[in-house]
Amino acid sequence: MEEALYTIGEVAKLANVSIQTLRYYDQIGLFKPAYVDPETNYRYYKDLQLYHLDLIKSLKYIGTSLEDIKKVQQLTREDLLLFMNEQEKIIEGKLIRLREIQQNVVHAKRRIQKQLNYPVFGEVVIRDEDEMRIIQAAANNLTPLDLLNASYSKLKRIVEEEEGVINNSYVAIITNQPYSYIEEITYTKIFTPILTDKRISTISTEIEVSKIPEGRYACIYYIFSPEVYFSNLKKLMDYVSNHHLQVTGDIYELFTSSNYSPSEQEYIVEMKIQIAD
Amino acid sequence: MEEALYTIGEVAKLANVSIQTLRYYDQIGLFKPAYVDPETNYRYYKDLQLYHLDLIKSLKYIGTSLEDIKKVQQLTREDLLLFMNEQEKIIEGKLIRLREIQQNVVHAKRRIQKQLNYPVFGEVVIRDEDEMRIIQAAANNLTPLDLLNASYSKLKRIVEEEEGVINNSYVAIITNQPYSYIEEITYTKIFTPILTDKRISTISTEIEVSKIPEGRYACIYYIFSPEVYFSNLKKLMDYVSNHHLQVTGDIYELFTSSNYSPSEQEYIVEMKIQIAD
Repeated sequence: MEEALYTIGEVAKLANVSIQTLRYYDQIGLFKPAYVDPETNYRYYKDLQLYHLDLIKSLKYIGTSLEDIKKVQQLTREDLLLFMNEQEKIIEGKLIRLREIQQNVVHAKRRIQKQLNYPVFGEVVIRDEDEMRIIQAAANNLTPLDLLNASYSKLKRIVEEEEGVINNSYVAIITNQPYSYIEEITYTKIFTPILTDKRISTISTEIEVSKIPEGRYACIYYIFSPEVYFSNLKKLMDYVSNHHLQVTGDIYELFTSSNYSPSEQEYIVEMKIQIAD
Repeated sequence: MEEALYTIGEVAKLANVSIQTLRYYDQIGLFKPAYVDPETNYRYYKDLQLYHLDLIKSLKYIGTSLEDIKKVQQLTREDLLLFMNEQEKIIEGKLIRLREIQQNVVHAKRRIQKQLNYPVFGEVVIRDEDEMRIIQAAANNLTPLDLLNASYSKLKRIVEEEEGVINNSYVAIITNQPYSYIEEITYTKIFTPILTDKRISTISTEIEVSKIPEGRYACIYYIFSPEVYFSNLKKLMDYVSNHHLQVTGDIYELFTSSNYSPSEQEYIVEMKIQIAD
């Protein structure tokens, strides 16, 4: 390849960068012209410099700041390899984070989709449901009369730290029994769904990873208010009993918001109990 | 869930956010306390508000700005679903981009690794090489005496636009013939490697996607200078002829930089020719 000199406009065109960028790179000492005409101050670049402009572009492309590019230019090959290994790890971390965010959006979509297709409130329906991974804790004698959002605080914090994911569903479990009064009910577990496939380390003796099994469920949906809690539970239990359905598990209560608006505070409760197919 | 009031400090603890953040959310009207004591100005929040704080956190988590969260809070479920679809597309785009950057870093690492293991310059070695996807163009009568970095400008721009990737290797092809003088040599093709698995659309009649086949190559490496070009080419051809190796393809000339430093301009040329196993 023989020697040739290009004007700044030619370099901009050949290398697909703007003239302003080239002027700025000169100014900060990142990429200086081979020759500046002392009379006109025009910049001239050698052909081989195009190659170094590509290297700068490729470093910029992988997310290196202009300040760091100057440092990278001084590295030995060995250190350059270490630098690239570090970049690879940073990118891997970003990919993991982004995939988690993706799973969160998919979950939010599913939740909204489900809300758009809610069955009639206050009536029992039979539904086939997928398995749901959950993280659960002992309910410590909580009852429907004193369960709070705040009760989930510790669980949510663990999911946030372990999974890096924010969740918007809170669930409580009661055993299937012929309750006659709300005062008889005590929760056995509270939990929140796990949204990612990530392996969660065993956190403590009180908190564990579990799942709601896939299968057929008798479900009832209603707009949350403490007053209608027991009548809906009763309706679900009566339906199961009247239709001679064989119950195979506990009763799950899922609490979720019907919208994102802080002014229209409307929450939906879904109660469901697994039955034999 | 029954009514309860929390101080700003309690909410901060329960929801794993800072008091400053809660104050700021109040100030911009994003998340306001249910009650402010008119005498002390202390903020108090209801338990159900924790749920809305989670929704805000989850929107922030997926990358929504605070300004946009305010808008999202007003959306109907149908529009919320559209919003989430949009977010999913944005994330998908970011993932694609990030994977391309990852491939670029992996390629840079491979290039540096190769440079750390260069054989002795100016001596022929036999190497088994992987297939390399390339994008190539007719060389339009270019010769070793007038090939420039600028000659690759059009090809590089296409790779940049189609692949979204910056490349740092430039290659030219000559046919295998018993050259006696440099003046006899004309390039048939010039090309640059393709780094991603992306399908590149047919770009024009002059530019096409092709590959350097995997297989055994006789190779010679040298530090670039126009003066030593022909002696190295001659050495490669003589080696092949003296060892009675059966040549199965063209001669490839790969041009690359030995470092990122603009002050130590050292370029490496690798010439290689495929031979029968």
